[in-house]
Amino acid sequence: MRDAYHEELDALTGRLVEMTRLVRSAISRATTALLDADLQLAESVISHDEEVDRIFSEIETRIFDLMATQQPVAVDLRMVIAALRMGTDLERMGDLAEHVAKVARLRHPDSAIPPEIRSTIVEMGQIAERLVTKAGSCIASRNVELALELEDDDDAMDRLHRRLFKVLMAPDWKYGVEPAIDVTLIGRYYERYADHAVRVARDVVYLVTGSRTPEPDAV
Amino acid sequence: MRDAYHEELDALTGRLVEMTRLVRSAISRATTALLDADLQLAESVISHDEEVDRIFSEIETRIFDLMATQQPVAVDLRMVIAALRMGTDLERMGDLAEHVAKVARLRHPDSAIPPEIRSTIVEMGQIAERLVTKAGSCIASRNVELALELEDDDDAMDRLHRRLFKVLMAPDWKYGVEPAIDVTLIGRYYERYADHAVRVARDVVYLVTGSRTPEPDAV
Repeated sequence: MRDAYHEELDALTGRLVEMTRLVRSAISRATTALLDADLQLAESVISHDEEVDRIFSEIETRIFDLMATQQPVAVDLRMVIAALRMGTDLERMGDLAEHVAKVARLRHPDSAIPPEIRSTIVEMGQIAERLVTKAGSCIASRNVELALELEDDDDAMDRLHRRLFKVLMAPDWKYGVEPAIDVTLIGRYYERYADHAVRVARDVVYLVTGSRTPEPDAV
Repeated sequence: MRDAYHEELDALTGRLVEMTRLVRSAISRATTALLDADLQLAESVISHDEEVDRIFSEIETRIFDLMATQQPVAVDLRMVIAALRMGTDLERMGDLAEHVAKVARLRHPDSAIPPEIRSTIVEMGQIAERLVTKAGSCIASRNVELALELEDDDDAMDRLHRRLFKVLMAPDWKYGVEPAIDVTLIGRYYERYADHAVRVARDVVYLVTGSRTPEPDAV
């Protein structure tokens, strides 16, 4: 009985790691769709978000059943509580990737990204992928050292986010208001995606150490 | 023993209702700070957000202790799981009110809100307050009918949000890019605040009925 219980806890970890893979693929494809004004790719990100939602809903059911039948305590209880929180964050990361894809779709066949900020968006996409990849490794390995690394990556994301605003507000910005609105929202989506990845990593620290770090101080 | 347990569950409800009061006051004061370019009021919203975070952290500790010592099942288990989720959403609503206040502070002594969109922001603030007030009543009364009302209020918020973009993108928008960025972000904060209130109401439905409605389809 006890073994089936621990297998179920491991399965939970596996499903969370699977969620990180899906939302990594989503932000990666959404970034490409945005940069290349690729409608088909944008549509695929939008339609695949359901899969993330489905896994999260499955995780919630498993956790409810685990709690009702096994009454986990100590580290196991921290695991199920952390899993609920991590699942919520990963589900939201899927939504944010979908939002990026929707901007790409809205502006197609044009690109929502003026040439001057292309490289910043490329970097934001790369950092988003790095963050979620590390978050997945943290969940799988329960590596607290690695979890702390995500804070630095998030700082890098915040710097890119500020750089974006600088370009938008520069006197030589020549694209007017509509692209500025798009870029403002896109920047916000990447920045929030990063915040949620940091929250996942902090939940790994909580799960291992039993102590909570404060929430990310989101912009 | 059983009585102390139910008292503790009631206390949880009381703390969540207290969170709704605090984040209602926060969005109300943030809206006024924004409209009146009132720096002192903005600062007070920003400094009071800690209180919301503190209550949430206390709720989390209580829930962990409850789960570890009482092993709730059935509706009680749904209550603690829903409470964790509701607390997360309410904590985020506090952050979003703080973000609105920070825009007011950033632009002080100017106002971030051009006259043309003043009335829309007033309405968004009113709907945000109505949503969180109803969310608080739902938590206290477990009224499923009332919980469903929040969906309509959220639709009204989405309409205001779209109206905002329309004004920003109109050919006669004369304030340039910086105010457009401010208004884009502010609009997003109110819209997200409303989404989180709806999630709280949906958790009340879950807690009462045991069934989950899908996530709000956020813009």
